[in-house]
Amino acid sequence: MARNISDLNTPCFLVDFDKVRENCQRMVKTCIDFGVKLRPHTKTHKTVEAAVLQTDGTKRCITVSTLAEAEFYAENGFDDILVARPVSEDKIHRYLALVQKLEKLHIMVSGSDGLTTLENHIPDLPEDKVWSVVLELDAGYGRTGFSCDDPEVILEAAKKVQQSPKMRLEKLYYHCGNSYHVNTEPEREKLQADHIKKVAKVQDRLSQAGVTCSSGVGSTPTCSKPIKDNLFFTEFHPGNYVFYDYQQYLLNSCAESSIACRVMTRVIAHKPEKNMILVDCGFTALSHDGKYQRLPDNDFCIIQGESNLRLIDMSQEIGKIVAKEGDLNYKLYPVGTVLFILPFHSCATSQQHAVYYVHRGNEVITTWKPVKGW
Amino acid sequence: MARNISDLNTPCFLVDFDKVRENCQRMVKTCIDFGVKLRPHTKTHKTVEAAVLQTDGTKRCITVSTLAEAEFYAENGFDDILVARPVSEDKIHRYLALVQKLEKLHIMVSGSDGLTTLENHIPDLPEDKVWSVVLELDAGYGRTGFSCDDPEVILEAAKKVQQSPKMRLEKLYYHCGNSYHVNTEPEREKLQADHIKKVAKVQDRLSQAGVTCSSGVGSTPTCSKPIKDNLFFTEFHPGNYVFYDYQQYLLNSCAESSIACRVMTRVIAHKPEKNMILVDCGFTALSHDGKYQRLPDNDFCIIQGESNLRLIDMSQEIGKIVAKEGDLNYKLYPVGTVLFILPFHSCATSQQHAVYYVHRGNEVITTWKPVKGW
Repeated sequence: MARNISDLNTPCFLVDFDKVRENCQRMVKTCIDFGVKLRPHTKTHKTVEAAVLQTDGTKRCITVSTLAEAEFYAENGFDDILVARPVSEDKIHRYLALVQKLEKLHIMVSGSDGLTTLENHIPDLPEDKVWSVVLELDAGYGRTGFSCDDPEVILEAAKKVQQSPKMRLEKLYYHCGNSYHVNTEPEREKLQADHIKKVAKVQDRLSQAGVTCSSGVGSTPTCSKPIKDNLFFTEFHPGNYVFYDYQQYLLNSCAESSIACRVMTRVIAHKPEKNMILVDCGFTALSHDGKYQRLPDNDFCIIQGESNLRLIDMSQEIGKIVAKEGDLNYKLYPVGTVLFILPFHSCATSQQHAVYYVHRGNEVITTWKPVKGW
Repeated sequence: MARNISDLNTPCFLVDFDKVRENCQRMVKTCIDFGVKLRPHTKTHKTVEAAVLQTDGTKRCITVSTLAEAEFYAENGFDDILVARPVSEDKIHRYLALVQKLEKLHIMVSGSDGLTTLENHIPDLPEDKVWSVVLELDAGYGRTGFSCDDPEVILEAAKKVQQSPKMRLEKLYYHCGNSYHVNTEPEREKLQADHIKKVAKVQDRLSQAGVTCSSGVGSTPTCSKPIKDNLFFTEFHPGNYVFYDYQQYLLNSCAESSIACRVMTRVIAHKPEKNMILVDCGFTALSHDGKYQRLPDNDFCIIQGESNLRLIDMSQEIGKIVAKEGDLNYKLYPVGTVLFILPFHSCATSQQHAVYYVHRGNEVITTWKPVKGW
């Protein structure tokens, strides 16, 4: 196996083992320091190996984004799994199989219909099992979840769970997805504080009515730089931090040096009449994510160590790179030159690859294979 | 195997067998009518089964976009394969293996460095083999290829090929990629005519110097609606037409009813406070392609049969759908409702899937598995 990354076919997805481990250990420590439980999200990488690092070797207490992930981790000896997607009738047979298999499966309910689905399938539960319910809150992100603006609806759902002998209220879950849409630390802190206030208000309302439960919060920006008020939460469930990316760097979640994944590509042609070089990395290897966002300097990725180069466009298998200033010095980039692209959104880029090449320094030490599908 | 598409897990990629076959047969007929050879591109689907339909069962004479595709088709009994990417030193060992295996392998040279690579590896060729060279021209698209504005450079390359006993000039290749960037038929016809003139000029120059060769042209918009001047070419190499998509429909390449692939998704939640429904199709199932283009009515896909619905955004596993006008009638879309999305760019969407569900009417008749990687 041992070979140099320069021997790899391009394009390919490189994972820096030491950086991943460091990112994982840092988050473990952050959670210890804050006294919260870490239930890391696996959606960014979808591999056994990175999830082992995230859970500090325990293989316990994870969050997943698809049932395919849940089944994959269950098969690979993981347990205490939260499926962080709204439960739905069409997939209920798969939840039931997972309930059988796992010691702890937590199911996310994001609206009253989800609760109805679980209630309807109580007769299908094994005798020694209950539905462990996580109620998803929407504190302003505006995607899935019960709106925090309507605590009575949430209370009603929570009561229904608590009153059923075959359901158990595990906790409230809240994803701070709009932390991706603010750029400065003070703005992010204000957003976090606002959201925490909203979730706390819901929790208070539940508590007044005799329903006690804790709350967890996700999103890599908020968990990478938690504020004091985060102590309100008992659980963090970030995911992207395993790899980080250019987006997280722009959001101040990480240093550029913590970005642990890259797409390796090679120069395949010169285009002097366009002041351009072409590389073998198209959208099938990088994804379009970030390309059309209004990013500083119109960059949607970092070409490592090449601050004057900009990827301006991609077709299916080809990327176009120009000089930001002046003429391209073609002597610096002969055909065959290897370049490393730090992606805008590692969750989107990793999904484009069936295999990750894991390296320490320049040595490829192993490969990781993510689970695919839904 | 036989089951109804409504039993499938969502999201999933559906392929309508009869439409694919019809699209393939129509292109076969177009090429017969025009008296040109069809060398279909397989990059849109990357499956054995669709390539069999494209080649009318012969498994001969195809174009591929990656070496992984070339190897996949070679293993599956296809031959006469053009690898339509610039040849490069780092992948030369794979070309050499393919030369051994195939009766006919055609290699694309897009610049003088590519020719140098082939020359350097002439000693590695089997005794009974030569490099079959296809020179790529850039007639204005501005990506890879020798610029048509500099015919002397092309002539020099062509002569070098012709003079070598171990190289053979197969033809000139030209991809009319910018036909995707014009919206009206007259504009497209003008673009085609301009490009044809440029390629013809190059061919004339070569011919004057004693180098005779033919030319082929690609791109689904130009090959779906070829103009009389296309008779200049002896070969067509379109690809997208197998599936077509919303983009091709906007370009007038096809009717909406010819779009042969869809992403099937289900409503997973209601969001009345946002006048929104959420579906289980995120960017991992659809890709971001088209999302940020300035498209009519800001649609970047068609939600089949639902002209008042618009997909406005996607996160990793979730899509957000709103009503274009008025309030969403939630009674029409209870949680669990199945919706079918016709993608903007089928080449990008198909790449997100490891398996295609092939159906006739509502019956799933088989699955197709595309080759992945590079």
